[in-house]
Amino acid sequence: MTVAPARQLDATDPLAGYRARFVAADDPSVVAYLDGNSLGRPLAVTGERLAGFVADAWGRRLIRSWDEAWMAEPLAVGDRLAEVVLGAAPGQVIVADSTTVLLYKLIRAGLGARPGRDEIIIDRANFPTDRFLVDGIAAEHGLTVRYLSPPHAAGVRPADLAAALSGRTALVVLSHVAYRSGFLADMDAVTRAVHDAGALVLWDLCHSAGALPVELDACDVDLAAGCTYKYLNGGPGSPAFGYVASRLQEELRQPIWGWMGASDPFAMGPEYQPAPGMRKFISGTPPVLAMQPLKDMLELIAEAGLAAVRRKSVALTEHAIALTDELLAPLGAVLASPRDAAERGSHVTVDHPRFAEVTAAVWQRGVIPDFRPPDGIRIGLSPLSTSFAELERGLEAIAGELRDRAGAP
Amino acid sequence: MTVAPARQLDATDPLAGYRARFVAADDPSVVAYLDGNSLGRPLAVTGERLAGFVADAWGRRLIRSWDEAWMAEPLAVGDRLAEVVLGAAPGQVIVADSTTVLLYKLIRAGLGARPGRDEIIIDRANFPTDRFLVDGIAAEHGLTVRYLSPPHAAGVRPADLAAALSGRTALVVLSHVAYRSGFLADMDAVTRAVHDAGALVLWDLCHSAGALPVELDACDVDLAAGCTYKYLNGGPGSPAFGYVASRLQEELRQPIWGWMGASDPFAMGPEYQPAPGMRKFISGTPPVLAMQPLKDMLELIAEAGLAAVRRKSVALTEHAIALTDELLAPLGAVLASPRDAAERGSHVTVDHPRFAEVTAAVWQRGVIPDFRPPDGIRIGLSPLSTSFAELERGLEAIAGELRDRAGAP
Repeated sequence: MTVAPARQLDATDPLAGYRARFVAADDPSVVAYLDGNSLGRPLAVTGERLAGFVADAWGRRLIRSWDEAWMAEPLAVGDRLAEVVLGAAPGQVIVADSTTVLLYKLIRAGLGARPGRDEIIIDRANFPTDRFLVDGIAAEHGLTVRYLSPPHAAGVRPADLAAALSGRTALVVLSHVAYRSGFLADMDAVTRAVHDAGALVLWDLCHSAGALPVELDACDVDLAAGCTYKYLNGGPGSPAFGYVASRLQEELRQPIWGWMGASDPFAMGPEYQPAPGMRKFISGTPPVLAMQPLKDMLELIAEAGLAAVRRKSVALTEHAIALTDELLAPLGAVLASPRDAAERGSHVTVDHPRFAEVTAAVWQRGVIPDFRPPDGIRIGLSPLSTSFAELERGLEAIAGELRDRAGAP
Repeated sequence: MTVAPARQLDATDPLAGYRARFVAADDPSVVAYLDGNSLGRPLAVTGERLAGFVADAWGRRLIRSWDEAWMAEPLAVGDRLAEVVLGAAPGQVIVADSTTVLLYKLIRAGLGARPGRDEIIIDRANFPTDRFLVDGIAAEHGLTVRYLSPPHAAGVRPADLAAALSGRTALVVLSHVAYRSGFLADMDAVTRAVHDAGALVLWDLCHSAGALPVELDACDVDLAAGCTYKYLNGGPGSPAFGYVASRLQEELRQPIWGWMGASDPFAMGPEYQPAPGMRKFISGTPPVLAMQPLKDMLELIAEAGLAAVRRKSVALTEHAIALTDELLAPLGAVLASPRDAAERGSHVTVDHPRFAEVTAAVWQRGVIPDFRPPDGIRIGLSPLSTSFAELERGLEAIAGELRDRAGAP
């Protein structure tokens, strides 16, 4: 089988023009950026957006901007994210905190809704933060953690879950797209299985939000959280988002009681009364400056359309796998991601014992994938900013470094 | 007594020149900005700093910046804050999270170090978030909260504390400067009293950091936290800072276990091992973009010197009190802040039953103090960006609105 030339794929890519909307997309010092799933590139408008924010909303309107705009932003930006990216009706999403902190609050909130049940199910393929949080909370509250799969499985299928679920299960915490393998879980079927057992599910959307359609409402999801610095291009350490289904908002309580989650933040009364609806999941002062870049990226995704984004994502990962088969497999590399596009997110991981040193070597050449222990190169493909040509350049560079090491000890 | 004219005070103010370093300090639409203790003005360099950050560190270095700079920033910016503002040796301060979340983690950490003790002491003059957090944690862990003073006291003196402290006290949570009255606590004496009872103290520094010298190490403080958007001009929702004394870092554990607080974040191993030292108090990905404005403000404070900042702060609050006595007291307003400068932070609160409507009216005229329930106008005086002239304009406008209402029902 011959791999289609990247030039041809770029020429017929209906989203190719979006690449120019990002900062320095053709900077010669970046030969191939294949890590947009760790840190998305900034939009060209982002610097200007921030400078304008400093000059006007912050610098001239000063504290008045809290009344005029900022108080509403955690929920307003959340609503736009819900609409454009998450398949969720308004009033269910906030932008706040770090992913870790928001996951902590939602895990605690979910557990509180299932008193008497003493097990949390999680997958070993979940990102460390999710596992660490669950371990810490379980240790503190005397709960048992059930790990679903062996350490290096790609991800979780409904059948894997069946044996673990029981009347003791309070909460199931899973990644929609696994951070290492790229495995895309069946959100609908898994959520149904969890509900059949009477438990709640919390989906980590870090590696799916912005890269493929998410249907939180249609899948009847209970809780979800994710970050905005990957496919949502919010910048390093940009705030997280959290989703709580409307039907659960009255019942659930989160443990970090702050003034911004109180029913009347400016009453400054003696006792905490949680705000109605989604606002009570906010704790402290929202990270207003840090959520500005996200707003432009949401409009860009709305303009391109998430279905088209997903089509390009699939084409990019297909191309990455074809190049892996052609260039890397003959050198001993092994694909660690699903071959079926329906089970795959927007990145592809390939394993080889020499990949730690290969990653360091290609970084020196401006080719930037991610290394994932013990021996994986993770190729992240951000559909609106990645070209087929840079993907090809990147995999050729990896193959070259691998060839240089062939036969060496 | 005649009040010195503002023009003369500005003319002899050695820090007067710093005002021009801030955005739009002489914008005619802002007649008097008296709320720098809610949201500090941006520095003129901040817009440029952020745009440059987007273009280079984020846009061109991309994920490589994590290795090159960002992983170190929560502690490196923390160390600079420790040196310039907090009177703390390196390795004891992080910049992370919101103030609410960081307070939550430090309260939980402090309580964990005093098992068997079942009381938390807090003051009613503390900011709502502090009180709400303590109430929430106490309810969850079966602890008793002892409130120190009647609802409208200015703040806490060591003698007020003596009757409440006992062998049951685990933790005392107090504001260094009270958010409403501006009362400046005696950090040294209070900390000693708390230690004599075998408890730990956590100081909320939101209203002191950047406005007056803080001496965490010299006062042998255990824990402290504060925000960076008031006198540290970090921008709306900029990250918080947290301090844990070196001598406690090995013993204390915080409850939100995330990958960035793990001993080797990139090992992504099966179990959470807390990082040594201060890093374990970090949970998720640090808010790197959002901590950039703070860096320039720290250098400005270092240049001006915190002793000089405090001298100007005292002069400004003295002037505010003199104007209050001259202009507002005859109209029935009552000073709600200490008259003794040694017991006062960098803001002054004045009460009058008509101040809710007066605040709304002066805002319409570009005079911007803060309203604090039930009937206080809070005049925040940010020493490096506030002039005596704007303070005078502001209090004259308040007096004018009050006079217009004299005799009205």
